Amino acid sequence: MRLLIANPNMTSAMTDLMVDEGRQVCRSQTEVSGYTAEFGVSYIATRSEMAIAGHALLDGLARHHEHYDAVIIGAFCHGFVDAAKELTPLPVIGLAEAGMRAAQVFGKRITIIGIGGHDRGANQDIVRELQVGDHMASIRILPLSGTELTADQGRAETEIVKLGKLAVTEDHADTLVLAGAAFSGMATRLAPQLPVPVISPLAFAVGMAEAAFASGWRKASEGTYKAPGAKPNKGLTPELSRFFN
Amino acid sequence: MRLLIANPNMTSAMTDLMVDEGRQVCRSQTEVSGYTAEFGVSYIATRSEMAIAGHALLDGLARHHEHYDAVIIGAFCHGFVDAAKELTPLPVIGLAEAGMRAAQVFGKRITIIGIGGHDRGANQDIVRELQVGDHMASIRILPLSGTELTADQGRAETEIVKLGKLAVTEDHADTLVLAGAAFSGMATRLAPQLPVPVISPLAFAVGMAEAAFASGWRKASEGTYKAPGAKPNKGLTPELSRFFN
Amino acid sequence: MRLLIANPNMTSAMTDLMVDEGRQVCRSQTEVSGYTAEFGVSYIATRSEMAIAGHALLDGLARHHEHYDAVIIGAFCHGFVDAAKELTPLPVIGLAEAGMRAAQVFGKRITIIGIGGHDRGANQDIVRELQVGDHMASIRILPLSGTELTADQGRAETEIVKLGKLAVTEDHADTLVLAGAAFSGMATRLAPQLPVPVISPLAFAVGMAEAAFASGWRKASEGTYKAPGAKPNKGLTPELSRFFN
Amino acid sequence: MRLLIANPNMTSAMTDLMVDEGRQVCRSQTEVSGYTAEFGVSYIATRSEMAIAGHALLDGLARHHEHYDAVIIGAFCHGFVDAAKELTPLPVIGLAEAGMRAAQVFGKRITIIGIGGHDRGANQDIVRELQVGDHMASIRILPLSGTELTADQGRAETEIVKLGKLAVTEDHADTLVLAGAAFSGMATRLAPQLPVPVISPLAFAVGMAEAAFASGWRKASEGTYKAPGAKPNKGLTPELSRFFN
Amino acid sequence: MRLLIANPNMTSAMTDLMVDEGRQVCRSQTEVSGYTAEFGVSYIATRSEMAIAGHALLDGLARHHEHYDAVIIGAFCHGFVDAAKELTPLPVIGLAEAGMRAAQVFGKRITIIGIGGHDRGANQDIVRELQVGDHMASIRILPLSGTELTADQGRAETEIVKLGKLAVTEDHADTLVLAGAAFSGMATRLAPQLPVPVISPLAFAVGMAEAAFASGWRKASEGTYKAPGAKPNKGLTPELSRFFN
Amino acid sequence: MRLLIANPNMTSAMTDLMVDEGRQVCRSQTEVSGYTAEFGVSYIATRSEMAIAGHALLDGLARHHEHYDAVIIGAFCHGFVDAAKELTPLPVIGLAEAGMRAAQVFGKRITIIGIGGHDRGANQDIVRELQVGDHMASIRILPLSGTELTADQGRAETEIVKLGKLAVTEDHADTLVLAGAAFSGMATRLAPQLPVPVISPLAFAVGMAEAAFASGWRKASEGTYKAPGAKPNKGLTPELSRFFN
Repeated sequence: MRLLIANPNMTSAMTDLMVDEGRQVCRSQTEVSGYTAEFGVSYIATRSEMAIAGHALLDGLARHHEHYDAVIIGAFCHGFVDAAKELTPLPVIGLAEAGMRAAQVFGKRITIIGIGGHDRGANQDIVRELQVGDHMASIRILPLSGTELTADQGRAETEIVKLGKLAVTEDHADTLVLAGAAFSGMATRLAPQLPVPVISPLAFAVGMAEAAFASGWRKASEGTYKAPGAKPNKGLTPELSRFFN
Repeated sequence: MRLLIANPNMTSAMTDLMVDEGRQVCRSQTEVSGYTAEFGVSYIATRSEMAIAGHALLDGLARHHEHYDAVIIGAFCHGFVDAAKELTPLPVIGLAEAGMRAAQVFGKRITIIGIGGHDRGANQDIVRELQVGDHMASIRILPLSGTELTADQGRAETEIVKLGKLAVTEDHADTLVLAGAAFSGMATRLAPQLPVPVISPLAFAVGMAEAAFASGWRKASEGTYKAPGAKPNKGLTPELSRFFN
Repeated sequence: MRLLIANPNMTSAMTDLMVDEGRQVCRSQTEVSGYTAEFGVSYIATRSEMAIAGHALLDGLARHHEHYDAVIIGAFCHGFVDAAKELTPLPVIGLAEAGMRAAQVFGKRITIIGIGGHDRGANQDIVRELQVGDHMASIRILPLSGTELTADQGRAETEIVKLGKLAVTEDHADTLVLAGAAFSGMATRLAPQLPVPVISPLAFAVGMAEAAFASGWRKASEGTYKAPGAKPNKGLTPELSRFFN
Repeated sequence: MRLLIANPNMTSAMTDLMVDEGRQVCRSQTEVSGYTAEFGVSYIATRSEMAIAGHALLDGLARHHEHYDAVIIGAFCHGFVDAAKELTPLPVIGLAEAGMRAAQVFGKRITIIGIGGHDRGANQDIVRELQVGDHMASIRILPLSGTELTADQGRAETEIVKLGKLAVTEDHADTLVLAGAAFSGMATRLAPQLPVPVISPLAFAVGMAEAAFASGWRKASEGTYKAPGAKPNKGLTPELSRFFN
Repeated sequence: MRLLIANPNMTSAMTDLMVDEGRQVCRSQTEVSGYTAEFGVSYIATRSEMAIAGHALLDGLARHHEHYDAVIIGAFCHGFVDAAKELTPLPVIGLAEAGMRAAQVFGKRITIIGIGGHDRGANQDIVRELQVGDHMASIRILPLSGTELTADQGRAETEIVKLGKLAVTEDHADTLVLAGAAFSGMATRLAPQLPVPVISPLAFAVGMAEAAFASGWRKASEGTYKAPGAKPNKGLTPELSRFFN
Repeated sequence: MRLLIANPNMTSAMTDLMVDEGRQVCRSQTEVSGYTAEFGVSYIATRSEMAIAGHALLDGLARHHEHYDAVIIGAFCHGFVDAAKELTPLPVIGLAEAGMRAAQVFGKRITIIGIGGHDRGANQDIVRELQVGDHMASIRILPLSGTELTADQGRAETEIVKLGKLAVTEDHADTLVLAGAAFSGMATRLAPQLPVPVISPLAFAVGMAEAAFASGWRKASEGTYKAPGAKPNKGLTPELSRFFN
């Protein structure tokens, strides 16, 4: 199958990181590609940035989805994922839902490890949108921005291990979710250093996309993700506009 | 005070309708204005349309908010309202939250009366986002599209009365919320024909905006609605880009 | 419109404080009056006191409601507000619901600032009755009794600012609710000293009452707030008894 | 032990019915007595009536509790029960909580069978106050008023059996709760005619009161049911006033 | 009535302790007996041990239930209690549900006091299974294993009092539940030393069993606890197999 | 990787069906094997049968897990899955959680399609244990027993399509979960006939197991699934007993 990683952030290095991890964890018969958003911000962390990225995401999917069998949205956010599921005639999976649903399988109490500089609110929104509040041990935020994290992976991993151990002893966490595209590829390295399972959202998004494809997933023609129909519109790119004409 | 009604739909007739109702229900010392979105769709009903409108809404607010004291988002949706609250240094109130919070005050069980052609899902999302599931009697959808509703208000009102009475007798509703900008101005006419209070979301949004202004509301410098800071960005209008530079 | 503030506490100085704030925040065409309960306790803080005050409240409303268009119950309690809504043919709004519903609009996580000497339980009951548990950051109790608070407003405001800042930094609160009739008038003075919006429940109760009146509110003849009918009764004042005869 | 059934309704025949059932189900060493409210209404069904009865209940308990070891509040309501628990230095159990907690033990999905003429809202309040919403199959209301029910017990029992069977087949109920003091004594007669357990709230209130007494229950000196302290008060009977002086 | 305490743990000393407390708190006309599981582990604390004990419990009940009127499952676990309710034609009550339902009556916020060495998870499961999460103040675990607790009751009681006081002052608990068969008989001794009610689950299980018997409880022939019918089976004891043949 | 499907039912034909589907959907580098329980009942449908099967499951895992990298529990039940996760040093995934978590990704409202003869209660337990109540559209039960379903797959598929369409039009379902091992392999055939995605729990369990393996899953040494330690035990097989010695 052909799997597309749609990155609504404008940082192509992050797209590469995700495509790399995707290729490592996928089945041998799966081809993984990615693209990077053409407008918006470098790294989505707030609701305003997410609102802009939602438009950019639909626009990008309208241009790129055609030769693929499934899409992974490469950002640990949830709001715009529902719009992408509605618009696109493919299985669409977000990192946040993949990571949190897997965490519900491998633990009773989940700690989200988030990126510094991030508003705590973005992760609180995910908890509410996915209705996993009763499963949360804590949200722990790294003392590193996304840029620092990418620049010094060694230091980042040391800090994650420190936070992860605190989550287990102080918050009674049973499993840890690495909440951000910038963490791609780290779970395997961190697992041996932590006393509970470490969830890589991307790995589970790939596994779910493959399962959906293998079990004959079909675009809904009814229900909440039915595609939008025609409607007068203005100011959209021709590719996106086509979905409403 | 100066109150701005931001309409993320592209239909200016709807903006007029809302400004009219706003002027009828506001205090004598309040001035009400409105503007209509410059890109997007005529009438937002699906999540894809909402994702596009979210960008348009922030762009419009960046251009228009400056001479106002408070903003009402003129659409019965919730997703993008949080982004607007974060970006804008003013009290921002959405129609859905104003209508549903008022309904929680005037009844224990709420029926949302929605517009035909609308996906039931849009209203289900609102119920989840505002966490009012335990207060819902039902979602009842009119057998009329937004266009039909505007074209023949008399017929629309007859249908609303019919649905509203069913909501009371069959779903045990205590209060009815008219869920859509297109209903503006109808609540006062419908109230005498229905056995439970009829909520006009706009009227309560105005009342709350006035209360926030009167009680000295200040933009949060901390917490979930703190404004986003500087971040590399591309493809935004100069007005919107200014918020990230 | 004519707005009645019904104070179920027996302290007329508190009624005056609320009438003063009501007059400051209301529309120019609104007339605000108040009355003080004739039996019960000086300042309601426990469930026993609330149970007695519930009877006193209905009795007072039976005597006083007639020349008014809406009623605000001047106590940050909720239990008896539902009874008042049922009995009275007017829009009735309690301080607790007005404050908490507004707080849900202006933040995701709410801190209630309560009066010292108060049982923490009274505020916990409100959280449960209004079903806002998922929105709570914390309940923080002032180290001052109601009497001390009224006697030394300067010291009270210093303490509130201290608690409010702790609520933001330690509990991740996005908005603060001043939970008590004795706080009337303080929100405007405190707002500039705190990093998140400060909710004055009374200001929002006034805004909602005006919105209800402006949008044609009608007493429910069906549903949960339908007036009680005739029923054999004994020991009630003639005014209250009239509602059951 | 000496057990007091406090009836906040003004109908002494109902008190007798409850005392009779109490004596049938209690331990041989338990003495059961009862008293009937001195002011209020004949049969509490609405929130206004409950608010008045709350005052009457505290007044009655202040007069009568002294020579007893435990109190059962003889009405299927919950609001005023918390006030009684706070005021009284004895274990206090309400019929609604006893019935619903027992129903949670004997089934996963509960149907409340309520009295006709009753507002459905009273039972909805109980469901919310006791937070048993997730355990509810349905609320089914008898086509008989309290008076008709008492006048023709044979017909009442036929109707209950009919409703109970519908609750099992249509609502998938696992257990039925007879929600009203007027049902006292019926459960034993109805059990053989129904395919699921029938809960008599009074029987379980008695069992819980005996268990509390046998296991050394002590009045809380801390926490939510700590007794109210001294407070200026007016218009209370000397017996009730004593609790606040 | 004849009451059977089924101990799914393999420690007969614990069975004796429960039978002793049962006899102290029961009615004079109730006869209390007990039996101890024939396979499994000495003291159930983990989910694996509980899974094994579930089989042992059904096997034991199949052998022993016949001459009894009600059964109490003598372990503070919940999973296997539902299976026992389904299989057995008698009222079946678990210690965890009896203790937690009683605690909901005597407080708003509950602290579970658990045995050291116990996984915190076992008590978290109970909270989820009984859906009492909103009522929890905390789970506090004794620094003593089950063996140490039994060996030195004096020290155990000192530790419980210490934990219980912390639960009240730090976690705002209103009531304490002694969560384990090994605590049998302690509640009465501890009550005078603690500022909130102390719940003995066994005492309330006895009270509820007596109430069920007195009010004519019947085995459900419909609904969730209907007995399993015939089904091909292998490897069961003849006594247990009989229920499926 | 080597994947083990542990069937706690005693029907080996069902094991074969699951192994077949597993091999169809898995990666080319995954080897799928299965085993069938050695004691218990032919097809688990009630809580009593599940309690017995829990013991059999642990016993089987103790014997068979050693040469594998992950385990799928081949029954649409949840209770015993937690025990298996605790005992086994491998990723363990149950069909119910895999199916329901996938359904949360592909729809907002889920309908479970269950097997006839099954108690509705088993599926209600799953909804509660996985805390997906707010995501449920309905539970729809086939008018066919497990035996009839296996004997006449054509008729079964016709009935499933009928129920599935009703779930979409009447219950507003967005996705359908085939809840039972006996449905293995059907999802792919049914998908083209239904207007919303059809979830095969086994396909997603395989995808998740592969993702866990690929991302370096490690057995928790802390938290809720830490292995049980040594404890006196009796009557266990030597293989199972080893885990407690």
